[in-house]
Amino acid sequence: MELLKERICQDGKMREGNILKVDSFLNHQMDITMLQEIGKEFHRRFANDNVTKILTIESSGIGIAVIAAQYFGNIPVVFAKKTKSKNLDGDLYLSKVKSFTKGIEYDIQVSKRYVTEDDTVLLIDDFLAKGQALRGLIDIVNQSGAKLAGCGIVIEKGFQDGGKLLREQGVRVESLAIVDGIEEGNIIFRED
Amino acid sequence: MELLKERICQDGKMREGNILKVDSFLNHQMDITMLQEIGKEFHRRFANDNVTKILTIESSGIGIAVIAAQYFGNIPVVFAKKTKSKNLDGDLYLSKVKSFTKGIEYDIQVSKRYVTEDDTVLLIDDFLAKGQALRGLIDIVNQSGAKLAGCGIVIEKGFQDGGKLLREQGVRVESLAIVDGIEEGNIIFRED
Repeated sequence: MELLKERICQDGKMREGNILKVDSFLNHQMDITMLQEIGKEFHRRFANDNVTKILTIESSGIGIAVIAAQYFGNIPVVFAKKTKSKNLDGDLYLSKVKSFTKGIEYDIQVSKRYVTEDDTVLLIDDFLAKGQALRGLIDIVNQSGAKLAGCGIVIEKGFQDGGKLLREQGVRVESLAIVDGIEEGNIIFRED
Repeated sequence: MELLKERICQDGKMREGNILKVDSFLNHQMDITMLQEIGKEFHRRFANDNVTKILTIESSGIGIAVIAAQYFGNIPVVFAKKTKSKNLDGDLYLSKVKSFTKGIEYDIQVSKRYVTEDDTVLLIDDFLAKGQALRGLIDIVNQSGAKLAGCGIVIEKGFQDGGKLLREQGVRVESLAIVDGIEEGNIIFRED
């Protein structure tokens, strides 16, 4: 997605430890017009998959997923929670996830009421690096018996193997920008 | 907001400890059409306040804020983070918040780059009970020197004193539904 790549070049910053910072428009401050373009692009790629529900994970995925849902006819969005909350009760799907950015392991949780075998689920998240969060979400979709349409990712870190491994396992992963690395201060994107 | 009150009566559930569960449409699964109506109503109430930025807090506020921003001409949304993240660096505004639902205290964080004295800020959140999260966000707005337009809340628990105390201090709090309590299993809303 050219508009996104231009924005990453313009406003993204690489930090030590392979952290790509896009907090000016994607995951701390959010540029709504950019999120709309991202949502349209996800819809373009998954328009024929009869998606009934978008599943994401708190927190950075939520804004992206909610805007995208509008282009899928306002289908519901469910976000997996990372901590126990009094707002969640009843039967839950649980899956263990290791966080690359925070260096911890935690259970993600989704109420069984909101993802069922009648659903076709699109997973959406801001980043794909080692793919731990996405694996947790896929595990939950599998537990539910729902159909997995695929994964819509805004930025994939192509120099880590999460996306590669998932694709090898037959999961459809659509990343709007794949960053393969940096050369002389320039971000190198994989060709579409 | 009648549509919202009807939905709360239809799908909301009261649990022990004054927990009002609206996870079927607001803070776990999100009904996008309802979020759009909520966003339009926030805009109707704050249309003349020259709001330049919406500030919310992860996680449940994000979806509401992002959809609402569309009715304010796609102004940027910033969400305060509750945990240290490698995605945040540089100068941060910090404020201490006590969580009612989780029984813990934590620092909320906003990058100084994204809220400045040039901004007029609308705070948006899903719930207002004791008002701790909102106080933290107001503290951050005050630290930044930005102007505070007010607070847009989806559901206020009128039987707790957060909203009352904030209004007494001159903060404009617009709650789309104020729940005063339960009588014989029915949710009692405050009159508009």
